[in-house]
Amino acid sequence: MGGSVKIAVIGAGSAVFSLGLIRDLCLQESLRGSTVSFVDIDPERLEMIHRLAGRYAAELGVDLRFEKTADREAALQGAQYVINTAARSHDDEEAERALGEQRGYYRGFRLSWFPNLTLMMAVARDVERICPDAWLIQSGNPVFDGCTLMTRQTSLKIVGLCHGHYGYRRIGQVLGLDPDRIRCLAPGINHGIYATHLEYEGEDLYPRLDEWIASESEQFWRTHQPEYNDTQMSRAAIELYRLLGLMPIGDTVRITGWQFHLDLETKKKWYGPLGGFDSAIGWARYLKRLAERVDRIFTVAADPSARLTEEFPPVPTTEALVPIIAALANDHRGEFQVNVPNRGAIAGLPDDVVVEVPAVVSGWGIQPIQVGRLPARIVLYTLMPRILEMERRLEAFRSGDRKMLLGELLWDHRTRTLEQAEETLEALMALPFNRSMAERLRG
Amino acid sequence: MGGSVKIAVIGAGSAVFSLGLIRDLCLQESLRGSTVSFVDIDPERLEMIHRLAGRYAAELGVDLRFEKTADREAALQGAQYVINTAARSHDDEEAERALGEQRGYYRGFRLSWFPNLTLMMAVARDVERICPDAWLIQSGNPVFDGCTLMTRQTSLKIVGLCHGHYGYRRIGQVLGLDPDRIRCLAPGINHGIYATHLEYEGEDLYPRLDEWIASESEQFWRTHQPEYNDTQMSRAAIELYRLLGLMPIGDTVRITGWQFHLDLETKKKWYGPLGGFDSAIGWARYLKRLAERVDRIFTVAADPSARLTEEFPPVPTTEALVPIIAALANDHRGEFQVNVPNRGAIAGLPDDVVVEVPAVVSGWGIQPIQVGRLPARIVLYTLMPRILEMERRLEAFRSGDRKMLLGELLWDHRTRTLEQAEETLEALMALPFNRSMAERLRG
Repeated sequence: MGGSVKIAVIGAGSAVFSLGLIRDLCLQESLRGSTVSFVDIDPERLEMIHRLAGRYAAELGVDLRFEKTADREAALQGAQYVINTAARSHDDEEAERALGEQRGYYRGFRLSWFPNLTLMMAVARDVERICPDAWLIQSGNPVFDGCTLMTRQTSLKIVGLCHGHYGYRRIGQVLGLDPDRIRCLAPGINHGIYATHLEYEGEDLYPRLDEWIASESEQFWRTHQPEYNDTQMSRAAIELYRLLGLMPIGDTVRITGWQFHLDLETKKKWYGPLGGFDSAIGWARYLKRLAERVDRIFTVAADPSARLTEEFPPVPTTEALVPIIAALANDHRGEFQVNVPNRGAIAGLPDDVVVEVPAVVSGWGIQPIQVGRLPARIVLYTLMPRILEMERRLEAFRSGDRKMLLGELLWDHRTRTLEQAEETLEALMALPFNRSMAERLRG
Repeated sequence: MGGSVKIAVIGAGSAVFSLGLIRDLCLQESLRGSTVSFVDIDPERLEMIHRLAGRYAAELGVDLRFEKTADREAALQGAQYVINTAARSHDDEEAERALGEQRGYYRGFRLSWFPNLTLMMAVARDVERICPDAWLIQSGNPVFDGCTLMTRQTSLKIVGLCHGHYGYRRIGQVLGLDPDRIRCLAPGINHGIYATHLEYEGEDLYPRLDEWIASESEQFWRTHQPEYNDTQMSRAAIELYRLLGLMPIGDTVRITGWQFHLDLETKKKWYGPLGGFDSAIGWARYLKRLAERVDRIFTVAADPSARLTEEFPPVPTTEALVPIIAALANDHRGEFQVNVPNRGAIAGLPDDVVVEVPAVVSGWGIQPIQVGRLPARIVLYTLMPRILEMERRLEAFRSGDRKMLLGELLWDHRTRTLEQAEETLEALMALPFNRSMAERLRG
């Protein structure tokens, strides 16, 4: 093992993601000489990313080869690593949300998991056929549902990645501590992870956190105007901690607990003046900033006189993607938070469900670290219900049973009547971009 | 084996239950010479049942011995069969309901499962100590949660019984068929069972049912004034069939699907003019009729000149209790619907959960019949969520964690805010008869 590899990037048109990947690759000396093959269905974005990558590497004098193709199969030829970051567009999701809101669901429904699973399985089948020994690295959502599906349906080497677990750093910041000196173990399932261990230089941080909650949190929430994505220390996070007994980490705070999400007023109460990342306000801001960042990347990339490494300085991102590839390819042994089939890593959860746990990653592969049992409240209140939702999704996906999908709406706490759920599902199915899904799901 | 046995009846003051038991025992020739030891905490009821039993047997000239005691341990001495029918009083449950209704929950909450589990475990521990080889027959509710708990915590021979599966007979009646010639296989978990097979003289009844739904059901619902307990052919039952693909049987129709139970109007829509068995109207009628039946039993029992076998003719009930004891004691091989640990009887459900399946009962014991896998809709929409609820209850019971109990309310579809759930739980805990539960559950 070691040295140069071939990496295929599916959905490379995600400009922010790909720019981060390019930066990290250029900074990873052990991967010099590698080839990166970008794939996207959007030729304009693909062209832009490809040119950007070449120029960035050239400015740094780094030996990396970049290819581009609309032909996924070509990109997979000889690949040892396949990164799948593709997902349905935000525009489609917004159309679904709007339609749900008209029917009494604040922030609506997204059925994007269905086409995203379809895409994931298509990629996985191609990998099986063309480069079956490659690592398939899934970063497009839903990581939990998708990785569970793919690891059940194939015998590929699959790992799901997410950066949500870095949320613990924000806890340190707010407590006035250096985030780099905090150590956190936060296992669970993707977007449902909880700090079983939270330490500052070996000192348990929970007592400090409790003290902060008792004496400073109200002041913090009153005076602090949180950014739309500062959910980690929101009232909702502390409430979940109070209910479940461990601190929820990262995106967990965004999606756990129906009681925080019923309407904008409720969201404002729990996530601050903007209603959090996923309120109508917060999400619009996110999309606007994302568009601005993409625009900026496009603008810079279109300017042949721009110095890319000045515009986007060559500092590593916090993403584990490239370090993990380096660890696998070149035996750079390290510990990373990964999403892999449970098989005992978390005691008491089913074996064939993908969990998020730390793992030792090296030339020997990905070796999950057993973290024991999680508290019953967390297992029975949040993880098992989410596992059941995933099972319903996979069953709908497998069987094409539309009634299975109806349950997704029926069991939502916002639903008031069966008719509301049925009517909304039919309306979602009638959206033009959902046609192929509607055809796969019998009436 | 064979011949006379000793049967202890815990909660014998349940007059309707005990009268049925007495009738069936008197009619079961193979159990002549047996001893029945009645136990109850209510001396008046106990005295009445004891006298009633003796007179009833005497009138029939049947050799059965009846004892009574307030001392459970004494009753268990030498018992081969222990029937536990004890449960919290309806009065306490009504007080809990009223309190929930004041807080926006139609029909409120009953936490009676908690004291009932406490009682079941106390009986099970006594059986373990005093008559460990006895069969413990659980008929008090919650059968599902209680039998799962007891079979996990002890190594006793435990079986849960319920008559809900006879609901299939009502399907036959409404279709104009002789119920005695219908065969139905309805496995699941107690109060969540579904007809995988429904036949009339070997003919699949589902097509007939579909025809009835298409051409006659609306007329039936319009013209038929259903009795409060005629839920089996209600709109709710047919809607569940439409959603889940198999006909729900018996009590399943009463408790499945939040969408039928939000308020009285909703219940009337789905269960007919009285709102079904569990509406305020239906339940009040049930309690009234129950009180009338108990009164009548008391009145007759208090009249030394009454001929009991004329007032309560000696015809067998539909309960399987006595036939099962006869089958076990005297090798009267038969097939019965029982609640026992799964261990593969229903494929795809956890092994250590009590399921309701048919079993061959004989001198060899209770041998559950493997019924295969249930449809995914039923498993993922109704059985697994109920299993999760049971796991939360058992965990609350085991750990004394009040937050676990809060989840019972929080996850209820009627709950609109966390405060509502918390306030209601605290109010329930403050009820005088819940004091010992409140003490066991930490704040």
